[in-house]
Amino acid sequence: MTKNLHVLMKQHPKGWVTEADFEVVERDIPKAGPGQILVRNIWLSLDPYMRGVMDPGRSYLAKIGPGDPMIGGTVGEVMASDNPKFPVGSYVVGNLVWRGYGISDGVGLVQIDPRIAPLSTWLGVLGMPGVTAHYGLMEIGKPKEGETVVVSAASGAVGGTVGQIAKIKGCRVVGIAGGKTKCDYVVNELGFDACIDYKAPNMEGQFKAATPKRVDVYFENVGGAIMEMVFGRLNSFARVPLCGIISQYNLTEPEGFTGMRHLLVNRATVTGFIISDHMPYWPGAIQEMAGWIKAGKLKYKEDVAEGLAAAPAAFVGMLAGKNFGKQLVRIGPDKL
Amino acid sequence: MTKNLHVLMKQHPKGWVTEADFEVVERDIPKAGPGQILVRNIWLSLDPYMRGVMDPGRSYLAKIGPGDPMIGGTVGEVMASDNPKFPVGSYVVGNLVWRGYGISDGVGLVQIDPRIAPLSTWLGVLGMPGVTAHYGLMEIGKPKEGETVVVSAASGAVGGTVGQIAKIKGCRVVGIAGGKTKCDYVVNELGFDACIDYKAPNMEGQFKAATPKRVDVYFENVGGAIMEMVFGRLNSFARVPLCGIISQYNLTEPEGFTGMRHLLVNRATVTGFIISDHMPYWPGAIQEMAGWIKAGKLKYKEDVAEGLAAAPAAFVGMLAGKNFGKQLVRIGPDKL
Repeated sequence: MTKNLHVLMKQHPKGWVTEADFEVVERDIPKAGPGQILVRNIWLSLDPYMRGVMDPGRSYLAKIGPGDPMIGGTVGEVMASDNPKFPVGSYVVGNLVWRGYGISDGVGLVQIDPRIAPLSTWLGVLGMPGVTAHYGLMEIGKPKEGETVVVSAASGAVGGTVGQIAKIKGCRVVGIAGGKTKCDYVVNELGFDACIDYKAPNMEGQFKAATPKRVDVYFENVGGAIMEMVFGRLNSFARVPLCGIISQYNLTEPEGFTGMRHLLVNRATVTGFIISDHMPYWPGAIQEMAGWIKAGKLKYKEDVAEGLAAAPAAFVGMLAGKNFGKQLVRIGPDKL
Repeated sequence: MTKNLHVLMKQHPKGWVTEADFEVVERDIPKAGPGQILVRNIWLSLDPYMRGVMDPGRSYLAKIGPGDPMIGGTVGEVMASDNPKFPVGSYVVGNLVWRGYGISDGVGLVQIDPRIAPLSTWLGVLGMPGVTAHYGLMEIGKPKEGETVVVSAASGAVGGTVGQIAKIKGCRVVGIAGGKTKCDYVVNELGFDACIDYKAPNMEGQFKAATPKRVDVYFENVGGAIMEMVFGRLNSFARVPLCGIISQYNLTEPEGFTGMRHLLVNRATVTGFIISDHMPYWPGAIQEMAGWIKAGKLKYKEDVAEGLAAAPAAFVGMLAGKNFGKQLVRIGPDKL
């Protein structure tokens, strides 16, 4: 890769995002100025929150306009450095956007040890999705042994981690995912007690059978009909960490949710959260999860799109639930 | 009153409750058996939660069927007693339902001191509505000095108390109420900083102007269009004590709420609560509020329907927002 590919947002999406909302352009590889480093991006993370970034409305996220590069988490190798904190040959994780090479003064970058775990895991189970799962479940969900924990998007990077941690904590864990393949994976590979296929008939009856003691913690990733269903099964004093509402990201008119009354009846709590608000939480969670990975208690799955130009299609597919495991884009090889 | 009037639920209401859903009947005054007391009910409290009691669905509340007396909080005088804890001539607060005279073994009754405050206040500002306001605001809302607190049904027993406590705590307080008379009362008598009339045109523009720093605590009593509006003005890390959703009580189909995404964007928390879950909280809250009443910092207003037979009409009117102040029914005089 001698040139420097960029993926830009061509226009704000109307409703469902499409590949036509993106543009792939080629630019020169920049030079690191004083105090700066040049990073060759190796892995790019694709995450549902990026859909929100593309909207013009108020959000907790930085906004981008037409012609701006898409933001996104990256792992890369330092190729040139005028910053002693990031020597040439070291690896960094950060937000160096959808491009082949990035320049940074180092703010927001963290150096990672490639010997602890594969580079890609710093964007997945040891990165934003993993820490999101850990924080949301433990700090908001507060699961007690024997309680029932339900998680939607259960085969995804966040959902899969939530369920496995809940199993480690002694809970009954029920996942919700799309299709038999994903559900089989969630139960057989990740060790959930049950998984409901939302594409199968009689989702509601199956869900009821899988939650005989109702639901104490619902880790919410998706919204829509699934959120309606689970709210109707909440227990008294249930906790709902609200991590994402994928079903609403692509709607021009937000959908109506009829479940607020269940919050009142069951004296339940819903808490929206964004893991970047909780930076002091990261190191401890990463350390604990690295230990679980080493002990074979925490597994992860990756879905890799090859090459930056494949990122728009992979992103559109992910929002439609086509990925299987943490969605990544391999921008280049680990070592040139 | 030589006979003993009862108000029964004649049938489960379909949608909006009407007077035809009730029946007033006359029964004999019962006799206190061993360990029992006979109470002459003096005051009956009418509260929105009672609408939920009338529905056949699952709820946190005891359910009643056709022909059962309506449940409800009462203050009364002990007329006969075989229970040394409740001597003749003492006053008790409890749930002795919509009737003139009740028999009790004393379970759930609390003796009150009529010298501290008027008998009726034990059903209002020093009773369930007042303690609900105190708990929801302080324990869930957790207002900080200088923050903006919004409360719907602001001229009601709960809302009026919420706003006054928030003022005591140094917050900017904005009420929402129906009509100019109620709004004037909320601002001029209760000392709120502003009150939005939801019956006036341009409610949303007025609300925006009244909440220049957006909303940190929203004490939710009503739901519907008002809930939609306030959720769109929540600040980051806002807290929403969910006390009631009056707009949904009378619907056969629950209405859709489009504001869940604001919870996520603003990392806000909604917590449903029922004050009867928190009995240890009551004495301290009552003591503090009695002090504020004495100091002139906490005011209350009562709307009195005369006679038990007037209770159904008063209840229907209250759910439509026709009452002005805490809705009570005077069943009989304080002293015969």
